[in-house]
Amino acid sequence: MRKCFKCSQKAQVYLPQHRLSLCKDHYLQWFDNRVEKTIKEFKMFKKEDKILVAVSGGKDSLSLWKALTNLGYQADGFYINLGIGEYSEKSEKLATAFSEKIGRPLYKISLKQEIMPIPEIKKHDSRPACSVCGTVKRYYMNKFAKDNGYKIIATGHNLDDEAAVLFSNTLNWSIEYLKRQYPVLPEEDGFIRKVKPLCKISEKESAMYAILSGIEYIEEECPFSEGATSIDYKIFLSQLEEKSPGTKLRFYSEFLRKMYPILQKSEEKPQLRPCKICGEPSINEICSVCSLKLKLKKQEEKA
Amino acid sequence: MRKCFKCSQKAQVYLPQHRLSLCKDHYLQWFDNRVEKTIKEFKMFKKEDKILVAVSGGKDSLSLWKALTNLGYQADGFYINLGIGEYSEKSEKLATAFSEKIGRPLYKISLKQEIMPIPEIKKHDSRPACSVCGTVKRYYMNKFAKDNGYKIIATGHNLDDEAAVLFSNTLNWSIEYLKRQYPVLPEEDGFIRKVKPLCKISEKESAMYAILSGIEYIEEECPFSEGATSIDYKIFLSQLEEKSPGTKLRFYSEFLRKMYPILQKSEEKPQLRPCKICGEPSINEICSVCSLKLKLKKQEEKA
Repeated sequence: MRKCFKCSQKAQVYLPQHRLSLCKDHYLQWFDNRVEKTIKEFKMFKKEDKILVAVSGGKDSLSLWKALTNLGYQADGFYINLGIGEYSEKSEKLATAFSEKIGRPLYKISLKQEIMPIPEIKKHDSRPACSVCGTVKRYYMNKFAKDNGYKIIATGHNLDDEAAVLFSNTLNWSIEYLKRQYPVLPEEDGFIRKVKPLCKISEKESAMYAILSGIEYIEEECPFSEGATSIDYKIFLSQLEEKSPGTKLRFYSEFLRKMYPILQKSEEKPQLRPCKICGEPSINEICSVCSLKLKLKKQEEKA
Repeated sequence: MRKCFKCSQKAQVYLPQHRLSLCKDHYLQWFDNRVEKTIKEFKMFKKEDKILVAVSGGKDSLSLWKALTNLGYQADGFYINLGIGEYSEKSEKLATAFSEKIGRPLYKISLKQEIMPIPEIKKHDSRPACSVCGTVKRYYMNKFAKDNGYKIIATGHNLDDEAAVLFSNTLNWSIEYLKRQYPVLPEEDGFIRKVKPLCKISEKESAMYAILSGIEYIEEECPFSEGATSIDYKIFLSQLEEKSPGTKLRFYSEFLRKMYPILQKSEEKPQLRPCKICGEPSINEICSVCSLKLKLKKQEEKA
């Protein structure tokens, strides 16, 4: 029987990459501490900052929201109903219930009202669903946070997410993307600061936290994520992790420690300017969401 | 039936990452051309240079030696008998026979005479066999080339080798190693120039060239390479390659094109100096081979 490293009670959780066994209570404490450490390591925010958590109803965003609340941060939720049938209905219900449970407000918008549901957009846009969905989420998230006095957006991206993106960008050596791969994106050019406090916490660790805290979260994956290359990379990296525990964490943290500073010194980054239609920050004259709207409108007129 | 892209005869080879079908003759031509292109792209050497090819008796080194000879370069062979039982005996025979076939000299040394056979060294050294063996081979190769007027050492490292090493160094973000990951290591500090003309040719392509040219090579892997992490990475990368042909080549070439120049600009490299015992270049006061010899001698005295 494995014993908890802290209290010698029966361990409920074993973390191979940290060679650490913990009982339920000490695991929950370990998780909160690790989130706090990450927040401090990357100077993400302080106790007095108003934080908006991007809530999907999944294990990561709800675990993050809980940990931040436990740690005494002022974290409110923001939920976008993507209009993906039952998946969206169920996740909205779970997110709402959780918000009531922890006594923090959850702000909601619906893509159906703002543009159209993801499945409809997908019919008119050839990009992968996750790419369109990401663009749209970032846009409304940023807009809402600015309009409502939030200084920081916190997302539930975990170590597996970050390692998979890093892996993908590394396979192609996409320098511009690698340069932005950091758990803090500073406030600039109309974007407010974005942070990823779970970046050093694995998917499994986040799921265990949710389960052991009694958080009810949506277990299904988004039906549109099927076949996404990022899932392939996650599987590949998990194979490496199994052979040699700690590989993912090392890959990601050593990138931040050793390669990220080198990249920062090289050349300039692309200049952002306000979108001619909505005023949100954009690389092109018209931002990606307004371009999407224009495209959808044109296609509707044709039909 | 696939047809040869060049002559419309029945194709014997299909190269998925290049989407190219070729007959036997046009494949052999394609291979030689690709080697020539790589030599020119990285300014490896010229027709008048005396080149020493590191010959192991395997498909890569023999294919390289053949292609260089076909292309009109003055390439002689250098073989180190590692003293690994039947494996070494067989590979020496095949390398010698090939040298006679193409009418170019093969110089040979035996590790048994220089230090002791790899299996013996392995008993006294806790490092992985491939690491010790690599150190020893580099040392004698460099020394022999300098002593005999060769300006360049060419090794048969192929794309799979280079991609696996790059992958390993990337997983750890070993900046110092990444900085040296280039198909040409210039002459400096007592090291003569080292080049890898097969760096853009995959293991499969090199094997096909050997087979279609009628080269007899040692097919067995070195018995000591079993369990080497580099083999895991090769398997892993081959899985990615199968899913998306061209991944390995892109990973390696884009590194050279985009990341390598950035790394060159960052900081300085470690200073080399002559080894106090043998005078060969070394990072420490005593070079790694002399240190190894001292260690082996001490252990012998103890026993």
